[in-house]
Amino acid sequence: MSRERLYLFDTTLRDGQQTQGVQFSTAEKRQIALALDALGIDYIEGGWPGANPTDSEFFVQAPQTRATLTAFGMTKRAGRSAENDDVLAAVLDPGTPAVCLVGKTHEFHVTTALGITLDENLENIRASIAHVVARGREAMLDAEHFFDGYRANPDYALRCLHAALAAGARWVVLCDTNGGTLPSEVGRITAEVIAAGIPGAHLGIHCHDDTGNAVANSLAAVQAGARQVQGTLNGLGERCGNANLVTLIPTLLLKPPFADTLEIGVTREALQGLLKTSRMLDDILNRVPQRAAPYIGASAFAHKAGLHASAILKDPSTYEHIDPALVGNERIIPMSNQAGQSNLRARLAAAGIAVAPGDARLALILDAIKQREDEGYAYDGAQASFELLARRELGLCPEFFEVKRYRVTVERRKNKYNRMISLSEAVVVVKIGSEKMLSVSESMDEEGTDRGPVNALSKALAKDLGPYQACIDDLKLVDFKVRITQGGTEAVTRVIIDSEDGQGRRWSTVGVSPNIVDASFEALLDAIQWKLIRDQVVPAA
Amino acid sequence: MSRERLYLFDTTLRDGQQTQGVQFSTAEKRQIALALDALGIDYIEGGWPGANPTDSEFFVQAPQTRATLTAFGMTKRAGRSAENDDVLAAVLDPGTPAVCLVGKTHEFHVTTALGITLDENLENIRASIAHVVARGREAMLDAEHFFDGYRANPDYALRCLHAALAAGARWVVLCDTNGGTLPSEVGRITAEVIAAGIPGAHLGIHCHDDTGNAVANSLAAVQAGARQVQGTLNGLGERCGNANLVTLIPTLLLKPPFADTLEIGVTREALQGLLKTSRMLDDILNRVPQRAAPYIGASAFAHKAGLHASAILKDPSTYEHIDPALVGNERIIPMSNQAGQSNLRARLAAAGIAVAPGDARLALILDAIKQREDEGYAYDGAQASFELLARRELGLCPEFFEVKRYRVTVERRKNKYNRMISLSEAVVVVKIGSEKMLSVSESMDEEGTDRGPVNALSKALAKDLGPYQACIDDLKLVDFKVRITQGGTEAVTRVIIDSEDGQGRRWSTVGVSPNIVDASFEALLDAIQWKLIRDQVVPAA
Repeated sequence: MSRERLYLFDTTLRDGQQTQGVQFSTAEKRQIALALDALGIDYIEGGWPGANPTDSEFFVQAPQTRATLTAFGMTKRAGRSAENDDVLAAVLDPGTPAVCLVGKTHEFHVTTALGITLDENLENIRASIAHVVARGREAMLDAEHFFDGYRANPDYALRCLHAALAAGARWVVLCDTNGGTLPSEVGRITAEVIAAGIPGAHLGIHCHDDTGNAVANSLAAVQAGARQVQGTLNGLGERCGNANLVTLIPTLLLKPPFADTLEIGVTREALQGLLKTSRMLDDILNRVPQRAAPYIGASAFAHKAGLHASAILKDPSTYEHIDPALVGNERIIPMSNQAGQSNLRARLAAAGIAVAPGDARLALILDAIKQREDEGYAYDGAQASFELLARRELGLCPEFFEVKRYRVTVERRKNKYNRMISLSEAVVVVKIGSEKMLSVSESMDEEGTDRGPVNALSKALAKDLGPYQACIDDLKLVDFKVRITQGGTEAVTRVIIDSEDGQGRRWSTVGVSPNIVDASFEALLDAIQWKLIRDQVVPAA
Repeated sequence: MSRERLYLFDTTLRDGQQTQGVQFSTAEKRQIALALDALGIDYIEGGWPGANPTDSEFFVQAPQTRATLTAFGMTKRAGRSAENDDVLAAVLDPGTPAVCLVGKTHEFHVTTALGITLDENLENIRASIAHVVARGREAMLDAEHFFDGYRANPDYALRCLHAALAAGARWVVLCDTNGGTLPSEVGRITAEVIAAGIPGAHLGIHCHDDTGNAVANSLAAVQAGARQVQGTLNGLGERCGNANLVTLIPTLLLKPPFADTLEIGVTREALQGLLKTSRMLDDILNRVPQRAAPYIGASAFAHKAGLHASAILKDPSTYEHIDPALVGNERIIPMSNQAGQSNLRARLAAAGIAVAPGDARLALILDAIKQREDEGYAYDGAQASFELLARRELGLCPEFFEVKRYRVTVERRKNKYNRMISLSEAVVVVKIGSEKMLSVSESMDEEGTDRGPVNALSKALAKDLGPYQACIDDLKLVDFKVRITQGGTEAVTRVIIDSEDGQGRRWSTVGVSPNIVDASFEALLDAIQWKLIRDQVVPAA
């Protein structure tokens, strides 16, 4: 059976850059374009040449891609020819194989925002598209405010689309610019547009997430016959963002009716890189990845409810809509006080610890977890501390060293230039075998800024652990989360520390105390101990 | 025109608690229940009594609500009567007016997960619902895996629903438990269920966001005729979360075809509290609110694109699908000083500071706020620090005292009984007028437990402020929130402190530093200074 081709158009580099706080460098744009190309996207919109220096620079340095590189701009202004519009000339200037021009299709915007006649606007669309085609480029019209425009004056909105196609546009794209249209209406209007003579094979859809329906709206348009979908990685974009391609792609590739009837440029093999592509963008933006994101979120296949977890062990399809490996993700069965023994055994097995069903120590471990959770611990997000707790109950946790004492000092005072500065210093005393070691550290970073007591403590602790030093030299603290679990300054503090080593392994540990420094210290100790165990270091005599 | 009633069912306290890392305390559950009630939710599901100690405790201490409090559980097990099922008995125990029982409707789950016959499962549903009804409660069936079950064996899935209704269930709720069903299929199947004799007025929908369609799926079911929608605040929930009520409510209340034909329990007035309700949950979970969230995100009405921003100034409806004030949100135009200044004047007026429009210092205050926000400060939740910042720019902030230096020590060591203990001690030196005062404090509470460096510091600071002592004697720290605003241990720490005085006034202050102790100290200083100003204390000479 031959399936119809559905084209994917990415606008992360253009509409995505309209996100509050987002401004890509040229190097970052290149990196994102290459990742999109590897994923199998058909069109990559690189920006608006001439509107923005980094956009222009990107087109000069754009990487070679299999995907069609597209420049964005707007239809020519009234009162001049397409040939004499300098804004349009700048858009054509980089010589991209495709050009996408935004044009008005809503009569209210033509008369209010542009202040021109409806016929002048039609002529602007026609002449601009014809000009792009005459220069040998693939032309597209982004029909701005199409759905609002169609509701207000369907006849005029359709005439704008016909004008573009008649002038040679490869695509006309229905944009829900304000993001307010709901799925049933997107489906209905898209079907009506096709019925009015705009072929679905030339029709695109561009949605925003202002009602939380950008993905559903895109799917509704595709089901109605549109054959190009525009969106961004991780749903980046102005206001609430654009349709999230990271969510759309697996649905289109894996799920009927889309997977049965349509073909996209993303292969099943490339799909396994989806999680990595999504994380790459978060990395560039220094954003914490959304745990609950569909398909690729860290929690997307996390089964916390006891009933679910035990069924998952029998057959993963009971509580999973797809195999997480298809998108490069994995199943998680976190610990929590709702978990049963089956959940616990699965989690232990994942940590390489096999315990027979019904082993009496399983109940002891569950009791220990429960007691600790009552004290304020949380093991959902601290798998390494969970593993250590279980190992202690199972007698699988050697004592590598003992902390005899520590002392941290934070001081705020004037320095010799009469400026207020703060200074933190930590002393840690550990006993390894029969040997006592004393380490001291302050917490200055490269710029001479004091980073506080936890930093000083972690430096002092990791400074000299004698025979273990080689193992922990590559240990790095990558995140530090604090939560006060009861109200008041006299509350209990929970600290979760994420660590990473030279092999790129990441693990999380938890500490709890009324004293935030002590809670942090406990999490630090767990982080070191977990690494020593995982690296199979032999405890010193 | 009379509109049909659509009921909203919130499961934040039950399904929402299945989120990785989420564990509400009983006090937090009460707070959330009261906020849901104020919003106008019809049903509040409080948890599974008997499955979890905090769930049971919540039902004992549940607040009085207009909303119908609902207990969750599962249908009785095979081989015993409903009267003799101890799990079911525990669900009925708290005496809630409504009870929602999850039951299987997918033959594969009946035979694989439960290991019983299809008829036994039907009897479990019938007998359990009848038992709940006989005890005088409103009964609901959560039809687990309904959509997958209907695809596999529509006849059996429907027989389960009919069995529940025949036994007296007020509602049968179609659950897309694995979240894999797409909107067009949810719409089609819901319509088929109604056509098969299940009245829409008794039909609910329960969706998960595993394909990013939980909101759209819920809307599709409502359009097909379902009259109860289940969801959670901020889309909390297992894996990718449940349908987000914060997104659904404004769509249902404001947008056709829903607003024209249906009535919900949320009023337009209550809708203006939507943003606050959403933020309250983030606060409880110590989560950073999602900027791009539909309707209530900080960026939901932020217009960054130059073209958009200038059109917005002509007419906001050009690029906004609703008026942001309807949901308690506001427009942000990063480049427009005009909008910023009127906002600022309103906030200052709320603090009792009148500044004339166009006063040049307004721009200076906005610049100072922007610079501080870049450094990690957040004034949304720290009105008192915002007021102090503005007062400093306006010359309305007297200097009451100067902190010359402080020093905090945290020590962990063995005590005389050979037990590890920690001990915190703080020394603070302040200059008041020409006099220098030196105070020292440790941080033991009544039980002799060390409460950490911030506690010691706050005690030392408030121990002797000479002429101001009478004013600050009744100052109490009631909450302390910590957030790391960039990744890594070398991140910036933001501390927000809530203070209260003898008159019951509450105010919040913020401090930022790489050093958590120093950030806390800054917030403490602001807390004291704000009280001295508000009590109109005269600075010492």
